[in-house]
Amino acid sequence: MSNALKAKELLIRAVECDQNARILEAQTLYTEGIAQLMQFVNGEPDETKRKGFLIRIKEYMDRADAIKARVNGKLMLGEVVSHVSINENDTGFDYDQLFGKYMDDKTVEIMLEEPYMTQNYQYQNLVRFLELAATNCPNLKYFRLITKEYQDAKNPDQQRTNLGQIKGDLERRNITVAIKYEDSLHDRKIYLSNGYIIKIGRGLHFYKATNPMYSIGLVNYKFRKCLQTDVDIWRNSSAAS
Amino acid sequence: MSNALKAKELLIRAVECDQNARILEAQTLYTEGIAQLMQFVNGEPDETKRKGFLIRIKEYMDRADAIKARVNGKLMLGEVVSHVSINENDTGFDYDQLFGKYMDDKTVEIMLEEPYMTQNYQYQNLVRFLELAATNCPNLKYFRLITKEYQDAKNPDQQRTNLGQIKGDLERRNITVAIKYEDSLHDRKIYLSNGYIIKIGRGLHFYKATNPMYSIGLVNYKFRKCLQTDVDIWRNSSAAS
Repeated sequence: MSNALKAKELLIRAVECDQNARILEAQTLYTEGIAQLMQFVNGEPDETKRKGFLIRIKEYMDRADAIKARVNGKLMLGEVVSHVSINENDTGFDYDQLFGKYMDDKTVEIMLEEPYMTQNYQYQNLVRFLELAATNCPNLKYFRLITKEYQDAKNPDQQRTNLGQIKGDLERRNITVAIKYEDSLHDRKIYLSNGYIIKIGRGLHFYKATNPMYSIGLVNYKFRKCLQTDVDIWRNSSAAS
Repeated sequence: MSNALKAKELLIRAVECDQNARILEAQTLYTEGIAQLMQFVNGEPDETKRKGFLIRIKEYMDRADAIKARVNGKLMLGEVVSHVSINENDTGFDYDQLFGKYMDDKTVEIMLEEPYMTQNYQYQNLVRFLELAATNCPNLKYFRLITKEYQDAKNPDQQRTNLGQIKGDLERRNITVAIKYEDSLHDRKIYLSNGYIIKIGRGLHFYKATNPMYSIGLVNYKFRKCLQTDVDIWRNSSAAS
């Protein structure tokens, strides 16, 4: 497909998502579409045509900026709806029990900011979170993961391979996935498009390993000992919009 | 502790379990207690004393035989209460959904006949089953696993180590564990002391692996594809006794 066609397709989908309140996906699509259009314009020899395209690009950029403002607005914390302090070695907490009830059929998009995705148990925690999403959010259409890029010394492709497996699996379930690498990321956050924001100090990774391995708690994390962390759940002030 | 003291302790506990309808544990304790007493008697030089002990041993053997008859009676199949046919590649089945409701606060003893306990995923399935027991059966006191002995070529202690981890973990939760190796075992069966018997053609191991590994279904087995198997649940005819 030519750059122009790719750009057109991406931008049509961006506008569709925008109109359907799927703002995270719209944001990704505008960015990708504009980049494609830029490439095409740069290869266009006709000065007049180029100027016409640049005006179109400016329009899309304005839309993308408006979307960005909406996304940032959504990410503003509103009122606290739940606070749980987990003490070191506490048990009884799994994702479902902590925040499952906020993941519902109104959740169309999810953004997860989770800096560390480098170890097997961390990919497992991600799958565990996504299984909860697949169970509770039948209308989920878009998932964005923001994490730090990581290159394992022995297996440099490990992170991309594992996240690629997860992406491929979700896309087979008709959930679009965007993975964004941000090396300065520190805070953990889960944004749900129904207006809830879940902030856990340690993100998804607040469990201790079972010791010995084959013990109650290997699979069912309600039996796992936890690390100390706080779980705050906020309802976005513009949730109704 | 001397053989005589060990035997005494085991046989006292056997009688206690016997009186409390914990017949599986009583059976194990009678067998062990009688074996200890035999050793002691064989070392007793006084002919008269020895005869006295042999009479006692005969009494305990009679009790053990009576227990065995009760255990066998309990293992007789009664009326079918549920039948589920799982087809190849079906999804939607986890242990809880299939038979969790039969595991309850009246389940004081569980016996699991599961010939194959040799691979990591099989130990994981066992832990998954025991987590369900720990969740649903607050009064569980005794668990007996019957399986085939297995020596891994590279790691001959693997089976004993892993099952030892599970045994140690359950015993910290005040559940006594007996592991019995039977090389001729083929059929899979779960016996619950509340009178239910769960027979699954493939035992606990009727799941396909996730492919690729990091996919929905890695943790939550409701999303896993299954192998073809039948699940029959029986209610023992002497369940009320």
